Amino acid sequence: MNEPKVITSLTNDRIKAIRALDMRKVRKETGLFVAEGTSLLVTARDNGFVPETLVYQSGTATSGIARGLVRHALDAGAEVLEVSEAVLGKLASKDNPQTLLGVYRQRFVEPPDPGKLGQETWLALEEVRDPGNLGTIIRTADAVGCSGVILVGTTCDPYAIEAIRATMGSIFAVPVVKMDQQAFVTLARSWPGDVIGTHLAAREDFRKVEYKNPVLVVMGGEGPGLSPGAAASCTNLVKIPMAGDLDSLNLAIATALMLYQVRGPYLKL
Amino acid sequence: MNEPKVITSLTNDRIKAIRALDMRKVRKETGLFVAEGTSLLVTARDNGFVPETLVYQSGTATSGIARGLVRHALDAGAEVLEVSEAVLGKLASKDNPQTLLGVYRQRFVEPPDPGKLGQETWLALEEVRDPGNLGTIIRTADAVGCSGVILVGTTCDPYAIEAIRATMGSIFAVPVVKMDQQAFVTLARSWPGDVIGTHLAAREDFRKVEYKNPVLVVMGGEGPGLSPGAAASCTNLVKIPMAGDLDSLNLAIATALMLYQVRGPYLKL
Repeated sequence: MNEPKVITSLTNDRIKAIRALDMRKVRKETGLFVAEGTSLLVTARDNGFVPETLVYQSGTATSGIARGLVRHALDAGAEVLEVSEAVLGKLASKDNPQTLLGVYRQRFVEPPDPGKLGQETWLALEEVRDPGNLGTIIRTADAVGCSGVILVGTTCDPYAIEAIRATMGSIFAVPVVKMDQQAFVTLARSWPGDVIGTHLAAREDFRKVEYKNPVLVVMGGEGPGLSPGAAASCTNLVKIPMAGDLDSLNLAIATALMLYQVRGPYLKL
Repeated sequence: MNEPKVITSLTNDRIKAIRALDMRKVRKETGLFVAEGTSLLVTARDNGFVPETLVYQSGTATSGIARGLVRHALDAGAEVLEVSEAVLGKLASKDNPQTLLGVYRQRFVEPPDPGKLGQETWLALEEVRDPGNLGTIIRTADAVGCSGVILVGTTCDPYAIEAIRATMGSIFAVPVVKMDQQAFVTLARSWPGDVIGTHLAAREDFRKVEYKNPVLVVMGGEGPGLSPGAAASCTNLVKIPMAGDLDSLNLAIATALMLYQVRGPYLKL
C-alpha cells in the first residue's frame, strides 16, 4: 500500500530536488513544476491532474479537503511526503506560506488545427516577459472560456511560481501551446476566422469590429508591442482608446479588455 | 547657484535616508517616496511635480532627457546628487536598474465634494492588498480619465516602489484620496449619481446597466470582495459574467472591465 514518507531533514535529497524547481533551468530539464496551497491543488485534481509528488506539513492533513488531496495522491500512486514545518518552510514561498504543495508534470499541447476550429477563441502572446502578467492572463483566458493560450517566441515561463500563483489554478484548465514566430505566422495565415492584433498605429476601435469566428487574438509583449511579422499576419489591427495622451495599458489589462470584447456574446450571468 | 553634490560613499547619510524609503514606516514618517527611471521622472515633471531630491549616475546625464531633468530639478531648487554607479546600485531596485531616480512628496487629496461633481467617474477601492494590483489600477484609472482613486480602510501603500512602478507614472496624474470605511459610506450615501459595486451575489450583468453620472465605482479587496457596509451603500450591484464555474477575476482586471464599461462612451480613438 502506498503510504506517506516522513521527512524531517532539511538536507534530504527529495526536498532539495523540489526546491530546485524554483530555477527555470531545472524546470526545463525535469518538465516539472510546483503549485502551492489547497485551492490550486483542488483545481488540479478537478482537472484530472495527479501530482508526481505531494508534500504536506505533518499534522495538517488529518481532515477535510487536505486529507482528501493526500488520499487522492496516494490512491493514484503518487509519492507523498509528510514533512516538518521547518522542511516545508524551506520549500514554500516566504510571502505566501502554505501547508500543502504539489509537484506536477508540465503540459504543453499541440497547436490548434485550423481545419477543426468552431466558434472558439484562441489567444496568442508574443514575447511576454512578466510571469505575474502571464499568470493573470491565463486566469482571464479561463474566465472567458478561451480554448487555449499560444506562447510565441521567447517568453517567460508559465510554470514559474509567480505565474502559477497568478493563474489561481487556471494553469490546470487552460491548454498552453509553445511556438516560434515562424510557425505562428504560418498558423495565423491559415486561420479560417479573424486574427485580431492590438496595435498603437491601428485606426479601428476594438469595440467596433465584428469578429468572425474562430477568433485568434494576438497580443505583443510588454515593451515593444506586436512585432511587424505578427502584425502583418493579422486580418484586423485594432486599438483600445485611452484618455489624454496615454498610449498603453498593462498587458494583462489590455488582453482582458480584448478577450471580454470577443467572448462577451457567449458570457451570461 | 544650485549645483549637483557629488557622493561616492556608500555610507553617506543622504543615501541611507533615501534607501530607507523602501520601508513603509519611513515613507509614512517623511511623507516622501521614490520613483525610478527617466520615463516616470518625465511624467512627474509634466504633471508639475518637482523632486525633493534627484539622484543621477555620474556621467549619464550629459545630454538629452536626463540632462533636462537634472536642469529642471536644479532650477527648481531641488537637491541634486551625482553619485557613482556603486552608490546608485545601493539605491535602485536590483531587478530594474535605472540611472536616475527622484524623491518626491506624497500627495493625498481631499475627498470629492458630492455637490460639485459633473459627468465624472471616481473609483473607490476597499482594503486592496497588493501594491502591484494597486499600481496597475491607478494606471488604468488614468487611461479611462477617472477623476480620482479613493482608498478605503486599510490598504497597501500606493507609494510603495512596486505600486509606483506599476503605475508607469500615472501616480503623478491621478488624484488619490484616503478615507476610513465610515467616512466612505457617508460619501457614497450622499453621492448624486450611481454608486456601482461588483458583487458575487449580484444579478445584474455589468454590461447591461445604464450608469447615471457622476459614477462612483466601488471594488472590494482581493480576497473578501466588497464589505457588507460598502455593498449596502451602492445604488447598483453588478457582476462580471465568467465562463464555467470560475467565480473571480484578478482585482485589477475586474476593475479595468468596470472602468471601461462606465467610461467607454467618453473614450474615442
